[in-house]
Amino acid sequence: MTERVVLAYSGGLDTSVAIPYLAEQTGGEVIAVAIDVGQDGEDLDVIKQRALDCGATAAEVVDARDEFAAEYCIPAMRANALYMDRYPLVSALSRPLIVKYLVQAAAKHGATIVSHGCTGKGNDQVRFEVGLAALAPHLKVIAPARDFAWTRDKAIAYAESKGLPIDVSNKSPYSIDQNLWGRAVETGFLEDIWNAPIEDIYAYTQNPDSGLDPDEVTITFEAGVPVALDGETKTPFEIITELNSRAGAQGVGRLDMVEDRLVGIKSREIYEAPAAIALIAAHQELENVTVERDLARFKRSIDQRWGELVYDGLWFSPLKNALESFIDDAQRHVTGEVRMVLHGGRATVTGRRSEASLYDFGLATYDEGDQFDQSLARGFVELWGLPSKLASARDERIKGTS
Amino acid sequence: MTERVVLAYSGGLDTSVAIPYLAEQTGGEVIAVAIDVGQDGEDLDVIKQRALDCGATAAEVVDARDEFAAEYCIPAMRANALYMDRYPLVSALSRPLIVKYLVQAAAKHGATIVSHGCTGKGNDQVRFEVGLAALAPHLKVIAPARDFAWTRDKAIAYAESKGLPIDVSNKSPYSIDQNLWGRAVETGFLEDIWNAPIEDIYAYTQNPDSGLDPDEVTITFEAGVPVALDGETKTPFEIITELNSRAGAQGVGRLDMVEDRLVGIKSREIYEAPAAIALIAAHQELENVTVERDLARFKRSIDQRWGELVYDGLWFSPLKNALESFIDDAQRHVTGEVRMVLHGGRATVTGRRSEASLYDFGLATYDEGDQFDQSLARGFVELWGLPSKLASARDERIKGTS
Amino acid sequence: MTERVVLAYSGGLDTSVAIPYLAEQTGGEVIAVAIDVGQDGEDLDVIKQRALDCGATAAEVVDARDEFAAEYCIPAMRANALYMDRYPLVSALSRPLIVKYLVQAAAKHGATIVSHGCTGKGNDQVRFEVGLAALAPHLKVIAPARDFAWTRDKAIAYAESKGLPIDVSNKSPYSIDQNLWGRAVETGFLEDIWNAPIEDIYAYTQNPDSGLDPDEVTITFEAGVPVALDGETKTPFEIITELNSRAGAQGVGRLDMVEDRLVGIKSREIYEAPAAIALIAAHQELENVTVERDLARFKRSIDQRWGELVYDGLWFSPLKNALESFIDDAQRHVTGEVRMVLHGGRATVTGRRSEASLYDFGLATYDEGDQFDQSLARGFVELWGLPSKLASARDERIKGTS
Amino acid sequence: MTERVVLAYSGGLDTSVAIPYLAEQTGGEVIAVAIDVGQDGEDLDVIKQRALDCGATAAEVVDARDEFAAEYCIPAMRANALYMDRYPLVSALSRPLIVKYLVQAAAKHGATIVSHGCTGKGNDQVRFEVGLAALAPHLKVIAPARDFAWTRDKAIAYAESKGLPIDVSNKSPYSIDQNLWGRAVETGFLEDIWNAPIEDIYAYTQNPDSGLDPDEVTITFEAGVPVALDGETKTPFEIITELNSRAGAQGVGRLDMVEDRLVGIKSREIYEAPAAIALIAAHQELENVTVERDLARFKRSIDQRWGELVYDGLWFSPLKNALESFIDDAQRHVTGEVRMVLHGGRATVTGRRSEASLYDFGLATYDEGDQFDQSLARGFVELWGLPSKLASARDERIKGTS
Repeated sequence: MTERVVLAYSGGLDTSVAIPYLAEQTGGEVIAVAIDVGQDGEDLDVIKQRALDCGATAAEVVDARDEFAAEYCIPAMRANALYMDRYPLVSALSRPLIVKYLVQAAAKHGATIVSHGCTGKGNDQVRFEVGLAALAPHLKVIAPARDFAWTRDKAIAYAESKGLPIDVSNKSPYSIDQNLWGRAVETGFLEDIWNAPIEDIYAYTQNPDSGLDPDEVTITFEAGVPVALDGETKTPFEIITELNSRAGAQGVGRLDMVEDRLVGIKSREIYEAPAAIALIAAHQELENVTVERDLARFKRSIDQRWGELVYDGLWFSPLKNALESFIDDAQRHVTGEVRMVLHGGRATVTGRRSEASLYDFGLATYDEGDQFDQSLARGFVELWGLPSKLASARDERIKGTS
Repeated sequence: MTERVVLAYSGGLDTSVAIPYLAEQTGGEVIAVAIDVGQDGEDLDVIKQRALDCGATAAEVVDARDEFAAEYCIPAMRANALYMDRYPLVSALSRPLIVKYLVQAAAKHGATIVSHGCTGKGNDQVRFEVGLAALAPHLKVIAPARDFAWTRDKAIAYAESKGLPIDVSNKSPYSIDQNLWGRAVETGFLEDIWNAPIEDIYAYTQNPDSGLDPDEVTITFEAGVPVALDGETKTPFEIITELNSRAGAQGVGRLDMVEDRLVGIKSREIYEAPAAIALIAAHQELENVTVERDLARFKRSIDQRWGELVYDGLWFSPLKNALESFIDDAQRHVTGEVRMVLHGGRATVTGRRSEASLYDFGLATYDEGDQFDQSLARGFVELWGLPSKLASARDERIKGTS
Repeated sequence: MTERVVLAYSGGLDTSVAIPYLAEQTGGEVIAVAIDVGQDGEDLDVIKQRALDCGATAAEVVDARDEFAAEYCIPAMRANALYMDRYPLVSALSRPLIVKYLVQAAAKHGATIVSHGCTGKGNDQVRFEVGLAALAPHLKVIAPARDFAWTRDKAIAYAESKGLPIDVSNKSPYSIDQNLWGRAVETGFLEDIWNAPIEDIYAYTQNPDSGLDPDEVTITFEAGVPVALDGETKTPFEIITELNSRAGAQGVGRLDMVEDRLVGIKSREIYEAPAAIALIAAHQELENVTVERDLARFKRSIDQRWGELVYDGLWFSPLKNALESFIDDAQRHVTGEVRMVLHGGRATVTGRRSEASLYDFGLATYDEGDQFDQSLARGFVELWGLPSKLASARDERIKGTS
Repeated sequence: MTERVVLAYSGGLDTSVAIPYLAEQTGGEVIAVAIDVGQDGEDLDVIKQRALDCGATAAEVVDARDEFAAEYCIPAMRANALYMDRYPLVSALSRPLIVKYLVQAAAKHGATIVSHGCTGKGNDQVRFEVGLAALAPHLKVIAPARDFAWTRDKAIAYAESKGLPIDVSNKSPYSIDQNLWGRAVETGFLEDIWNAPIEDIYAYTQNPDSGLDPDEVTITFEAGVPVALDGETKTPFEIITELNSRAGAQGVGRLDMVEDRLVGIKSREIYEAPAAIALIAAHQELENVTVERDLARFKRSIDQRWGELVYDGLWFSPLKNALESFIDDAQRHVTGEVRMVLHGGRATVTGRRSEASLYDFGLATYDEGDQFDQSLARGFVELWGLPSKLASARDERIKGTS
């Protein structure tokens, strides 16, 4: 029987070239699968046709945008997931979903090999292959860029020699990955980390200084899930899409950082993630109002670990499941509304209200109606500080004798 | 012998009234001590005279601004200290320093009692009294606002009855604490957490939309300490002062949040901390460049604990010392320059360079000169994912049998 | 209407004396409630009668042993809860359950006050009162030993003056709290922490050197819950009871430690917890076999926090619920058998087997059948060590230039 | 110039065979280096001669026992390092020290290659090679067992064909690694994890039931370092050696566990570590007496991470240095004496005393002299429980409305 290869297909040069090349190398048939995770570039039917034109035996397109929003982006927001306190895990979130559909396609087409376009020095190869090992350990993986040491120049030469229908002339200087949750850009001149990004790099965001009027938005959450914008009920996909547009117009969510890759090196990354940054800010503040202090403090370590784990390609891991059980429990009362102003590159919370609020006006106010019994404080303060007091006294005592 | 009381004196209504009242209650003499931690309000000689006019036996003024900058603010920056990921610990940092000088004054004047103006529902009473218990456990503490249930109205009536030289007519609606590291504001209408702050509240920052030209600044760090601005060597106090001015003019560092107090309640707080926010952002990015990944990941939990501990009044605690030993070690190579644009309420890093950089162009680049051996990746990926793979296989196996 | 007081009644001197005293102080009626958490002392009907003889309006006895085992002890075992790596939280577990029944009794009898016998320097007052604040914030609490500064001598004098039917002559030198999960002993001569415990102190355990033959036991777990001993299905209560007997006979579970109390002091404690120590050892080893590495590593921090939280009286807290959601998820596959030898004070695991095992003989063996592909290791090792390597090279470089 | 290879030489079959084989493969000269880390087997001069007889160009022996004790074992004890709460890191500690001497030998002999005998599925290859990458990134590494897929049978055949002076007849069924800090045993029949270990396996410990009289020992610590036994000043090496003997005679320190290897698999391990287990128990209890509560609680997470890091081969890492800065600070007052009974497989602390004690008899006692002010407790308890109380009330409120 002819061997079959399922290829994660983007429509770009590298994966287009991979179609005939994989067929050659394996003597098999190549099935191209393109997953729509909101990357919002070329029409997917055009991409599908290109795969066929490059020699794919079959080509499939999956609209996974709603699933990506609800099952991947929103869990990240519930974990306030910002890798290194900054990066909202854009690419790291889409890989496990793509893996899921590659495995489905492999089952449907009887494929024994899966292929992806990642290099050997990035994080995405790990995310693809650890996901595949978890979901379908029997599948073999080929990553041409890594395993056959493809370069862009080799790819272009090969495309030309094969007469592939790919326009290689208009070469973008940028290496880009984008989806509903954001956009990542790498490029040569930014590999000098002293160089500043230029306006030309950005696509999801306008210049923050564009002078638009401020945009006030109210986000409604139920149990840690955004369910409405400005009072209008929407799906997660709709909410993220609208916030990308509105917050993006105000220049919210631009990031420029040096980042620790899983493979052990540091790299320079530019991100744009307008909806992600706005939603996480709103969500954090609603947590401030509705989550009890000790739980909130501990959740920070849970959130950090969730973000590291997903960044590190371990989406399909037992630890991630257990962390999410914690987070689910912690989100039960994260219900309410956050009012936010999007403007000048900032997403600023200006109001919050919730039936599940733990903010108690009677205890908090310094005006009339204060119900806090201040006489309790003295005993609290003394016992709170007792261990430090005893340790200081010990230190003095020891110093005296030595 | 006449009992002596050392009073932490701010010059305001509450502590002015406390002077004659403490004298009455204790039958003793009151020594007023005002500490300059960069709060930048009234002239301290005026404050000193007011204390004497209110009946203080002696009044002292301490200029602790350089010490506060170097020994309190900079350690907070090295810990990237943002309580609840937001608040740079403005008031929490000044309390232990004030305590230190109160204890010195008590020793000098032979006082047996120390007094402060905090209420019984805030954090600052804890910070004062736990500090005092650590440094001078033999001193008695009186907090009139808490222990004698003073209110503002009682204080005004008392002031008038005694003819104290305090102007009580121009009552500010705001309750404010400020120092070099920032400014905290509470006020009645913001106790409704749905209400947005108004421009009138702010003093350290201009409106971010003021339309000023962007201000580019380069901050030089040595071993985690800022040592120069735009190439000019400065002390921590000078650097913080200049950044408060420059970042403040651009509207950087405004915060509005619901916060978990140590005494168990949630409160609404508005902060302004232009220099703090700018310095922490610059410092974090220089850490991204110079601190190894595992150390950087673990340091986040160290930083979080440092911030909680200091917020919670445990500055003089053995745990804080040990955390700082960790941080000191982690800062050894945090040396280099960060270029930052202050504009429109944002402090954005645009470049970083360091002799101690761990960013390795040869390993990071995708262009010519790439030295990363991609053939190592496959083995890494397989063993990295092996535990997840085995667990997934187990889950499948169990599912099949049950 | 007459005020009613629900008293947590143990049958001992302090709470017996409290009956008439509380009636006197409050002018109300006292309802005594005794909860059986497996403390295994006097007959509860005798205790009930004594309460009535001391003047209680009503006396109730609750058999909560099964509930205590299943809902309090087993969750502690699932968290491998050993405060300070040693103490299995004996008393800390029973308090929230007792609180639950006090609140039920208060509702039933229309009581407005609840009373307990704890002092003001221990942990148990916190566990009682924080639990009461959570479950029934409207109830007032009186703790005679703390609030009226009762001492033993005062109690005896009062008992004699009232002719209460309590034998005060045979005064035990030990202060004891015990339940199904273990036994805690404090006593005067052990307050010198250099003094060793004497054999007379122990009741749940025999001398480990008694020379009994080793006792081999096989414990079966399902999803982290012990369900059988030596193949025989049993309830948690039966399992703990039998293990207390069998492990106790072998001297397992004696502990002697200096402990950090929540109220800020250190105290010396002697514990006996034969079943707890044996079960936790068995459970940990079954986790070693069935829980994935990253999950196991992280669970240690979850377990530690769970133990601290429960020790600190925060059983009814949102953080505990969220931690337990994590633990529940992590226990899904903790199913299998552990064979253990109880002997000479030791509970030693000698075998483990599980359908859900992650131990893979084919990968682990060094004999024939080895399926581990050693060629993967080199790439793994190089990338695993790359961050350290780069940091060492940087350190050398910096050293060279300075 | 002839290439030179420095080989970590144990004297056993695998590394003896490696001498001529490495010479063959590299066309170079082999320098054998044997490091004495207290493994206490064959005479090192015999081993040295064997290396020469097998064809080594040079052979060196390093007595690193004192250094290993003081710089590797004691830091592990200060971190209470027990991987998975059990294993005191025996092999993981010796590898970095051996690496250090291999690098020294390579420099001295002008070698460009380093070789070790580890397989590709264990942890030790990682510890060797990550250490080498950190200390001497220019050196090439060859691991014959892994890189040339050596098996025991291949090694024997090769040894016989070359007439190497190695006795291969008396093949031990056990795979053993041992040093001053303990001994690790793996063997075929224990790869069935249901099988119990047999007495024949053990060498560092006698049967715990041997019936010896109890052995009481007093260990003196200064700043977290053991400095005397029974009042007699000794070096760390002497203390560990004596405790191995005395605790080993009493059967202390036997461990049997399933363990998570860094390379992603679980394995069954038997350990004996009499001195390690006794010292860690004594050290932990002295910490209980002398370390303040919050510091002690946080140090557990530091200790756990230190143990994982060293287990994972990252001895020469920036994070380890920073963790040790924390630990050093935390050990400043861990000074005093611990009395311990070694008997029947148990190392039981029975007394502790310290000038730096934080145990305060006046605060702890329930007898006369009690100085604890119980009136402070009520305020403490109320504010301590306030967040839980507010959360419970919120939960009730929400339940009521939904």
